[in-house]
Amino acid sequence: MNHSVIRFILGYVIGFLGLFLMLPVLIALIYHEPVWLDYSVVALPCLILGIFNSYFKPKKFSFYLKEGFFCTGASWVVLSVIGALPLYISGEIPRYIDALFESVSGFTTTGASILDNVELLSHASLFWRSFTHLVGGMGVLVFLLTVIPLAGGDGSQFNLMKAESPGPSVGKLVPKLKNTAQMLYVIYLGLCALEFILLLFAGMTPFEAINTAIATAGTGGFGIYANSIAGFNVACQWIVAIFMFIFGVNFNFYYYMLFHHAKDAFGMEEVRMYSLLTAISVGIITFNILGTSAGFFDALTKAAFQVTSIQSSTGFSTADFAVWPQTSRCVLVLLMFIGACAGSTGGGIKVSRFVLMGKAVHKELISYIHPRSIRKTRMDGKPVNHETIRSNNVFFGTFMILFFISVFLLSFEDLDFSTVFTSVIATMSNIGPGLSLVGPSANFGFFSDFSKLVLIFDMLAGRLELFPILMLFHPNIWRDLFSKRRCKELKNAGKILKQ
Amino acid sequence: MNHSVIRFILGYVIGFLGLFLMLPVLIALIYHEPVWLDYSVVALPCLILGIFNSYFKPKKFSFYLKEGFFCTGASWVVLSVIGALPLYISGEIPRYIDALFESVSGFTTTGASILDNVELLSHASLFWRSFTHLVGGMGVLVFLLTVIPLAGGDGSQFNLMKAESPGPSVGKLVPKLKNTAQMLYVIYLGLCALEFILLLFAGMTPFEAINTAIATAGTGGFGIYANSIAGFNVACQWIVAIFMFIFGVNFNFYYYMLFHHAKDAFGMEEVRMYSLLTAISVGIITFNILGTSAGFFDALTKAAFQVTSIQSSTGFSTADFAVWPQTSRCVLVLLMFIGACAGSTGGGIKVSRFVLMGKAVHKELISYIHPRSIRKTRMDGKPVNHETIRSNNVFFGTFMILFFISVFLLSFEDLDFSTVFTSVIATMSNIGPGLSLVGPSANFGFFSDFSKLVLIFDMLAGRLELFPILMLFHPNIWRDLFSKRRCKELKNAGKILKQ
Repeated sequence: MNHSVIRFILGYVIGFLGLFLMLPVLIALIYHEPVWLDYSVVALPCLILGIFNSYFKPKKFSFYLKEGFFCTGASWVVLSVIGALPLYISGEIPRYIDALFESVSGFTTTGASILDNVELLSHASLFWRSFTHLVGGMGVLVFLLTVIPLAGGDGSQFNLMKAESPGPSVGKLVPKLKNTAQMLYVIYLGLCALEFILLLFAGMTPFEAINTAIATAGTGGFGIYANSIAGFNVACQWIVAIFMFIFGVNFNFYYYMLFHHAKDAFGMEEVRMYSLLTAISVGIITFNILGTSAGFFDALTKAAFQVTSIQSSTGFSTADFAVWPQTSRCVLVLLMFIGACAGSTGGGIKVSRFVLMGKAVHKELISYIHPRSIRKTRMDGKPVNHETIRSNNVFFGTFMILFFISVFLLSFEDLDFSTVFTSVIATMSNIGPGLSLVGPSANFGFFSDFSKLVLIFDMLAGRLELFPILMLFHPNIWRDLFSKRRCKELKNAGKILKQ
Repeated sequence: MNHSVIRFILGYVIGFLGLFLMLPVLIALIYHEPVWLDYSVVALPCLILGIFNSYFKPKKFSFYLKEGFFCTGASWVVLSVIGALPLYISGEIPRYIDALFESVSGFTTTGASILDNVELLSHASLFWRSFTHLVGGMGVLVFLLTVIPLAGGDGSQFNLMKAESPGPSVGKLVPKLKNTAQMLYVIYLGLCALEFILLLFAGMTPFEAINTAIATAGTGGFGIYANSIAGFNVACQWIVAIFMFIFGVNFNFYYYMLFHHAKDAFGMEEVRMYSLLTAISVGIITFNILGTSAGFFDALTKAAFQVTSIQSSTGFSTADFAVWPQTSRCVLVLLMFIGACAGSTGGGIKVSRFVLMGKAVHKELISYIHPRSIRKTRMDGKPVNHETIRSNNVFFGTFMILFFISVFLLSFEDLDFSTVFTSVIATMSNIGPGLSLVGPSANFGFFSDFSKLVLIFDMLAGRLELFPILMLFHPNIWRDLFSKRRCKELKNAGKILKQ
């Protein structure tokens, strides 16, 4: 393992975290809240460490997938652990494990809370919670790629980006990876700014609008009111619903729309399937809840909001869907598994994985009917790499196994099946609310510390698509990290590659 | 497609079904029940058709995987449709869809019933229900292979067996496939006879013992009393529990034990994992239900019975586990997914598939850590075929997708989540009872006809491991069946192969 580059990147992550933590300090000062001190106490050491670190550039920037995955896993753990500190130090969340849960839930854009009443929090903490969504949504390492002078070539940088970007395959939009990352961030922040402005026009205060906009952008779901978005007017609800849908779309779509032919954008199979799923689900739920709603438009508003919220893995709510009829709840639970598009800020297994799996199943069937037929699996007209398909298949199995193990570990709390089941999927898919005891009007505070740790693991594993987090638990990684011999081997391998 | 060989095999299946249907006729005559006429009315035409059919041997016995899968799917549909007739004609089950559900549940060894009170059935029908388990357990085409003069070589016959035998890979125990099939049936019926004798000694009447033994052998689960096995003494319960465990073990284990070194048998990774899972589950549940049981031995008896019953996918019960604490219920639901060993008569995804998937996940992790390492996945010390691993991965995805679609289709009935979820897994894994409204003390009668059809599909798909049944819905298969051109192509392909 290339120790120095790992140290360099982790140092940068901590430095930027310090910078980010200055924002709630600013908010606290604006609202005259004493918590500015608590945030500063954490921010300053991070900043100093970050600046100090940047002076010691690594000798070699070469970077393998292993280092990419390790860096990503470690960065997210570091972010969460430090990001939880101000919430804990300020006393707003009295127990550290709860603060960690809240922080992980923020960075992973889950939006599941352990708080009974968020309205008791200071403005600074409310903003910090929402802001973690913005950081986690597009990914902190993708962000690093846009700003830090990371030499080592596209290959090395790609290994960093691959671990953090959701979906079965990561592609470059423009020839240079750095420009791709910048492009993604421009689209991301641009859309976020647009939502902010629209929400202002629709009647939100600037503080409400900024929080809602950044929590939507990251498809996070932390609200600043106990009743989430239900208190805002219908215009605001529709704006949020539409933007939740928008942030669940593969960002390549917007890139194609802006800089290519729109035909390429609308030809994306994943986006078409995602839109279709949304439309069908909204249709079913609208008719299903018509009886208990104030007319068709009210039912449609609620259905559209809840479907886009769950499918994009945001987790805002305007109604307590835990008390909706079974059909609606069932549709929502299925959407929790499917999730958003790859290359979006959303979570879940991802629509494209299901599309690919559907194609693999079809190919398997065909292979029985015509055993000697050889056909390439295609996506958006292009043949799909064999490795991608294999990885995709393994992903399903891994997801299922992790899901089962988590359900098993949570079952030691004597809770009903629906609570256990949906709290695992709501965290693994980074949704936020589930059903029954973890429904939209409830919270995750009642779980034991052990269960909270399981759910924290699930949130991180879900956001980073399992392997970077699983890898942190593999003994080989730690052996590599502490072994000089391995470093030499790697050096030699590098030399061989160059020859 | 080789039409004549398909016709030949389906004819044989119907003929044997006629022969099997003579058994309930015999039982009815012994107990002086009028239903002997209803069973005869169905049995005789089948017998005549079967005998008539056997005179028209196909010209060519060559057989591809496609024909094997098609034959298997079609045979099971035919078996179920005809097997339901006597139950319907006799008026014991007044609606045909209910009779079909019961018949499919029998042949697929699910054991889920639509009957409120089985004790109202005639002895003949009770026996017929149990007997369908025996036929379905080891598979009707495997049975055919042991008796009918099917030329065409091992390759062709193997394609037939592969579709019906559970598990990721089917191996031959002895050089000739016919002898392998015979060997399996000898072990199967031998163990069944042993259980029958032990149950007699433990105090059951002959009718009780034969029904219980054959329902255990097929890991079916239809009982002849409304309270399943709860009314029998503890000795009977332990015998049934031990035999449920035994029939969930890969039959290769017994073959190795009898004709090879016992070391090979005990070295089987799947069997070890299966035993470990059983032991752990029994341990957890025993302690979990200790408070509500009459002492440790009572808790152990109930736990051992329920765990072996669910894991082997039998579905007998001695206690209403739907009212057990959440931890126990959760363990049982997870066992429903895992299921028994490959190559047993049990259902579920199969332990070996999980073992293989675990290895695939580990290999994936290693591939990130050491991208250039090439290591073969091994099982029981032997390298596993690449195709087997791919198929296994796709199986998980297919299972998950089918599971979700079924849950979605069932959600249109406004039932609680736990009922919908467990009724799908209880049928797909061929278990029988689920939780809540489909718990061990309840039945599937309340579902709508549409939902019953979905569950019938799930039972068949689960028993035949998805693809033979999915294939029946693929247009290519039907195009092939009705196209002469395809036949010619196949002939030519055969010639090319011979050259």
